[in-house]
Amino acid sequence: MPTYAEPAPSYDDVLAAAARIAPHARITPVLRSRSLDAIAGAQLHFKCENLQRVGAFKFRGACNAVWSLDDATAARGVLTHSSGNHGAALALAARTRGIPAHVVVPEGAVPAKLAAIRAAGASLETCAPTMAAREAAAVALQARTGGTLVHPFTDPAVIGGQGTAALELLRAAPGLDLLLVPVGGGGLIGGTAIAAAGAAPGTRVLGAEPEGAADAFESLRRGTRVTDLVADTICDGLRGIVGAVNLELMRRHGVEVLLVSDAETLAAMRLLWERLKLLVEPSSATVLAAVLRYPERFAGRQVGIILSGGNVDLDARFGAPL
Amino acid sequence: MPTYAEPAPSYDDVLAAAARIAPHARITPVLRSRSLDAIAGAQLHFKCENLQRVGAFKFRGACNAVWSLDDATAARGVLTHSSGNHGAALALAARTRGIPAHVVVPEGAVPAKLAAIRAAGASLETCAPTMAAREAAAVALQARTGGTLVHPFTDPAVIGGQGTAALELLRAAPGLDLLLVPVGGGGLIGGTAIAAAGAAPGTRVLGAEPEGAADAFESLRRGTRVTDLVADTICDGLRGIVGAVNLELMRRHGVEVLLVSDAETLAAMRLLWERLKLLVEPSSATVLAAVLRYPERFAGRQVGIILSGGNVDLDARFGAPL
Repeated sequence: MPTYAEPAPSYDDVLAAAARIAPHARITPVLRSRSLDAIAGAQLHFKCENLQRVGAFKFRGACNAVWSLDDATAARGVLTHSSGNHGAALALAARTRGIPAHVVVPEGAVPAKLAAIRAAGASLETCAPTMAAREAAAVALQARTGGTLVHPFTDPAVIGGQGTAALELLRAAPGLDLLLVPVGGGGLIGGTAIAAAGAAPGTRVLGAEPEGAADAFESLRRGTRVTDLVADTICDGLRGIVGAVNLELMRRHGVEVLLVSDAETLAAMRLLWERLKLLVEPSSATVLAAVLRYPERFAGRQVGIILSGGNVDLDARFGAPL
Repeated sequence: MPTYAEPAPSYDDVLAAAARIAPHARITPVLRSRSLDAIAGAQLHFKCENLQRVGAFKFRGACNAVWSLDDATAARGVLTHSSGNHGAALALAARTRGIPAHVVVPEGAVPAKLAAIRAAGASLETCAPTMAAREAAAVALQARTGGTLVHPFTDPAVIGGQGTAALELLRAAPGLDLLLVPVGGGGLIGGTAIAAAGAAPGTRVLGAEPEGAADAFESLRRGTRVTDLVADTICDGLRGIVGAVNLELMRRHGVEVLLVSDAETLAAMRLLWERLKLLVEPSSATVLAAVLRYPERFAGRQVGIILSGGNVDLDARFGAPL
């Protein structure tokens, strides 16, 4: 594994994040469904981060990052690159502190997510849909504005903030055998692994990743971070390459990644809409898809699941009628 | 106003219902949305009965009715006629007591709702889609089985049970100026009016009704119960003619009905999906449609809204892309 520049947050950092974001973030409900439990053959506890502000857990990390800055630094504003939810989250977090936000978005991002970024009052700049173009545009923006770059998943304050979702879930549903969350850049699973190790060391953490964006799975398998994968998945929130610090957190905490196909994800998304009556985006459905694809891992267990977001483009047809 | 056979339940009956159904029904969350508040110019408190068991408030009334029966009567089973949610609710309520349930459904009912009735283990019988055919089939079924008919909205135990949703909402969100619920047969609005009068006498109760099923609106306007309207609305849960006891409760408690068009309802449904990340069925969206159509009634007020159900047919196209 390579070394990484960003330090990883600790469990105390997650606890501090929970206190820091409490005035701004929602404590989201944990829902159950008897019919989904019956289908899965397991006890599923769904942490509804689609009901978080801006419709995604991303608000937790962005809010923690914004409120971790000293006043003079905060006054110069924050900026980031994001395919959607993190951008909207940072824009809203900046508004809670009354500071400017700038967001670089790749061309082809989900229109509903762009609208959310604009609605929160951030300034928007588009770039080519590659990680290199995103990072270059962010660096240029930083030079121009003097603002603080809040990386969507490697920033330690972001990772610590994301861990607060698992912290709440572990408190609301004690005795979980497993915690299962989607893997994109790794902010959520990194924070989740830290929170679980601190709050419930007996709870194992698993990740769900699309087959078409299997960089974290491949990186763990090969023992080195894979950075040259081109994502091909409907899960627009999971197309990023897992960060170095995030991968190291996964390795350190023994996180295993389960792959799912887009077809499995779409079927799971429909089930979540139907049975939980919740609008979740495709990325969020990877977790239920994993439960249904690998039933032997989950049979009879108490499983905590983080439904990461609900920012669906209602005009999208997802290739077939939902 | 005509007299009616069924006695109306009292506030004490609603309190007793709350205790009776507590082991079986969910206490559903109350959600807020800053963006919907901004659009509406009011403070909206959404009671999420789409997250109730069987996906609708109907489980409350059915459960109260089933558990109000003495053991010998209960053992002969229960039956009803229903276009959907009440049938599924009664089927599940019967299962919680381990007694048989029979449901008469009109042809053309929403497939998702029929599946829910079957899934709960009830026996299904179809009839022509008129209230007369439904009632005749139910009477025949009653003669054959000896079971107890649980009417979907005039049964006093059903009305009392439905009132428990408003009771919870008024406790979770004290100081509401208005309570707004959909009007179909009138079970929900009848129970809501009783609960509000008992728990929060300063809270005014309003109903939302589709223009294409304006029987309650017309009945109140004319001072006599209109029974000859043929419903034409996408709100499949609101096509029934308001019951006599329900109408009398609305009159007694000064309930006013606001009409909305199906187009307004669909636009409101999309807003609820997008902003609350909740799947609600068209009937449930009439209430937000009413808030947006009659802004002068709601401006600056604290408004409690019951989102009545979430049993959407995801294959339905609602005439246009959502």
